[in-house]
Amino acid sequence: MSFSDHFPVWDKLSGAQQKILSEHVIARTFPKGTVIHEGGLGCTGLLVVGSGQLRAFILSEDGREISLYRLLDRDICLFSASCMLRSIRFDVSIEAERDSRVWIVPAEIYRRMMEESAPLANFTNELMANRFSEVMWLMEQILWHSMDRRLAAYLLEQSALEGGGVLTLTHEQIARDLGTAREVVTRMLRYFKNEGLVQLSRGCVLLTDADRLSAIAQ
Amino acid sequence: MSFSDHFPVWDKLSGAQQKILSEHVIARTFPKGTVIHEGGLGCTGLLVVGSGQLRAFILSEDGREISLYRLLDRDICLFSASCMLRSIRFDVSIEAERDSRVWIVPAEIYRRMMEESAPLANFTNELMANRFSEVMWLMEQILWHSMDRRLAAYLLEQSALEGGGVLTLTHEQIARDLGTAREVVTRMLRYFKNEGLVQLSRGCVLLTDADRLSAIAQ
Repeated sequence: MSFSDHFPVWDKLSGAQQKILSEHVIARTFPKGTVIHEGGLGCTGLLVVGSGQLRAFILSEDGREISLYRLLDRDICLFSASCMLRSIRFDVSIEAERDSRVWIVPAEIYRRMMEESAPLANFTNELMANRFSEVMWLMEQILWHSMDRRLAAYLLEQSALEGGGVLTLTHEQIARDLGTAREVVTRMLRYFKNEGLVQLSRGCVLLTDADRLSAIAQ
Repeated sequence: MSFSDHFPVWDKLSGAQQKILSEHVIARTFPKGTVIHEGGLGCTGLLVVGSGQLRAFILSEDGREISLYRLLDRDICLFSASCMLRSIRFDVSIEAERDSRVWIVPAEIYRRMMEESAPLANFTNELMANRFSEVMWLMEQILWHSMDRRLAAYLLEQSALEGGGVLTLTHEQIARDLGTAREVVTRMLRYFKNEGLVQLSRGCVLLTDADRLSAIAQ
């Protein structure tokens, strides 16, 4: 497993840039449960996932968490290197959700390279736009429309009606019942799945953690 | 008033790039109240503000609005050109809040130039990171902590106690009473000011639209 295989724009860097990256990148393993980066505390660097799974989340003042996204093989986390971009001023925490192998690119190395490399800067742009979009969607759905609460309540209600945790329901039906778009239901169900609350198969939702669903529904 | 004066990385572009930009940029004036860009509808292009004031906002399904940020002289709006970055998938609307002069850079021109210009790509990165940070902060405070509602209710309460719309209060005091950080109060008061709800001077908050404050407080 090599860094160059896992770094998407490797081939677009000059030989000199590849050399600098190779010399400065740090390979680390993090056991499941490790908090790799704590929001607001320093600048860990850019994280490139080799194997395992990371979770990015924000923490409210009263200790509640909202998972923002997961990072799997070859995913790259920008916000652990927020010092790199002067303008990033919010705090995302990152934890290893499984035993993970991660490369850390020191923020200063990355920033300097980005200044002279248009491919790297554009790649970083796309990364950020991607995360920005995901986070905006989630914040809107969860915080504005309470879609997590409404969907959790709905699933528990259906489970009570059907007398079990296996629900034969299409996303289309759920969307109709909740008065929203099918795409919203599909994405929120996928979010629930990543949170370990449900399993999904064609036309079917299996509730796997009714207790946490109840907590969300209230 | 020239485009080159208003475009921050102009001097870092090559002569050929400057020429292409000059040839393709479109100068427009928008009377107050014009919706320049409607979220989800096409790709207006990159907006560079020459004079006036634009407001970026998101619209919920039931028609509520949240103002995200204002754009003044020399500010640049990226999200009206969201098609430019494949990964931007959320919809921000832009309206002219005052009579405004705006340059529009066609998205395709900008995107192609960014691909070969590291300075332009890095500048775009900073723009996006900046907006991302502002929007994250706002979403967290408004939607998660209900800080807009709590601050509005607090100001109205103080106004009832003092028997008038001029409150002698430091941000420090307000923060203590609301159990949050001074910086949060300062930023939220500035947000209220931009929304036309209050005026601010040293150690003093003047309520200018009690009706809308009441609407927010409820």
